[in-house]
Amino acid sequence: MRNICLVIEYDGTNYCGWQIQKPHVKTIQDTIRRILEQILQEKILLIGASRTDSGVHAKGQTANFKTHSDIKLNKLKEALNSLLPDDIAIKRIKEVPLSFHSQFKAKSKAYRYTILNHRIPPVFLRNYVWNLQYPLNLNLMRQETRVLLGKHDFSAFQGSNRIAKSAVRVIKDIKISKKGSLINIDVIANGFLYNMVRNIVGTLVEIGRGRFSKGSMKKILLSRNRNNAGPTAPGKGLCLMRVEY
Amino acid sequence: MRNICLVIEYDGTNYCGWQIQKPHVKTIQDTIRRILEQILQEKILLIGASRTDSGVHAKGQTANFKTHSDIKLNKLKEALNSLLPDDIAIKRIKEVPLSFHSQFKAKSKAYRYTILNHRIPPVFLRNYVWNLQYPLNLNLMRQETRVLLGKHDFSAFQGSNRIAKSAVRVIKDIKISKKGSLINIDVIANGFLYNMVRNIVGTLVEIGRGRFSKGSMKKILLSRNRNNAGPTAPGKGLCLMRVEY
Repeated sequence: MRNICLVIEYDGTNYCGWQIQKPHVKTIQDTIRRILEQILQEKILLIGASRTDSGVHAKGQTANFKTHSDIKLNKLKEALNSLLPDDIAIKRIKEVPLSFHSQFKAKSKAYRYTILNHRIPPVFLRNYVWNLQYPLNLNLMRQETRVLLGKHDFSAFQGSNRIAKSAVRVIKDIKISKKGSLINIDVIANGFLYNMVRNIVGTLVEIGRGRFSKGSMKKILLSRNRNNAGPTAPGKGLCLMRVEY
Repeated sequence: MRNICLVIEYDGTNYCGWQIQKPHVKTIQDTIRRILEQILQEKILLIGASRTDSGVHAKGQTANFKTHSDIKLNKLKEALNSLLPDDIAIKRIKEVPLSFHSQFKAKSKAYRYTILNHRIPPVFLRNYVWNLQYPLNLNLMRQETRVLLGKHDFSAFQGSNRIAKSAVRVIKDIKISKKGSLINIDVIANGFLYNMVRNIVGTLVEIGRGRFSKGSMKKILLSRNRNNAGPTAPGKGLCLMRVEY
């Protein structure tokens, strides 16, 4: 038995996320699993590090599966990339110890949320950014992110669909950078609650446009109440950049 | 009567080109014309500078139309951008003299062809590049482009679908640049024959990968015979960058 780890890139536009508990729905996980089973001719359980949502993208999703096959890994990677649809690609493949589990062994995950702050609709980036036409106070947004750093109960930013046993997570880094009209919000944490990045971004935008005042982020965080935070930013602006072990 | 000029950006992936003489086919021209007619409540003839092909993109297509309406141009631009599908955007709008004709008055057009020279399938660029996995000799490709500069009969690079009265065109500039795995081939000419850029690129790639030898471009050009040139590069790698008047 071998344990194989994949680093995967995908455009989530045409999928109902990585994984979903519904039949007859197209997911990234299921698309890759079917092709693995076709190549390896055995049942495959494909475990992803992050259950990215509908429309969310990945440049570094990590997944693993166990197989009895002795296929060479570069051959398997080539076969996968030639059989997968062109919005999913296997970037790297390697054999890992049998104890490796892409979800439970993850030490940190890095997500990037991208906002386009531009007046003309973004034709080529339409599926990859949240396009906002009003001005944003980035300096205030940067200041307000500071209270999120470290270990906190992030209940205020937890989506109502899936409630985790504990809402305590550690945000290791959060950076807002600007390049032309593109604003990137990079968040690294030991783990994320459902919709956590999108709810933090939605709140930051309310602050940046002046609807929430200075100091709001701290009050919202301490309230542990989702109703106090801003709206959930659209999934299409979010990308899972990498998972670290 | 006013003559209005539009600068248009579009992702050509889901369209059968700018314009086509077939009914029940989705084109860029027709999509914009219908929305113009809906806003202005009159019949509109929309003339584009270039009839880009199926799958070909534009960052600077130019088009004009005449109207009896006295609508303010910024209002019209906003209305267009809110009603157009999200793969078409109006970048600029201005009133021009009644004599202006976006096709006949064009002095030069600039096209960019993009090749990705990379081993992993390009998930996010899949609709915008020609992905080639074999190495290309860019220096040789650059040398071979020199014979194309200036005024020539480009019959050897003319697509067989539409034959122009004269195949003489003037290439003002042709540059090959590389940025990471992306190779851009920028061509500026006073006009282009049908499929001309794509046939030049297909020929350059044959040279770059060593299938056509040094000096081939000159022989092919002088032969005026399409059969001697390389294959037509895929439409998705091509983008109309700008039209000058």
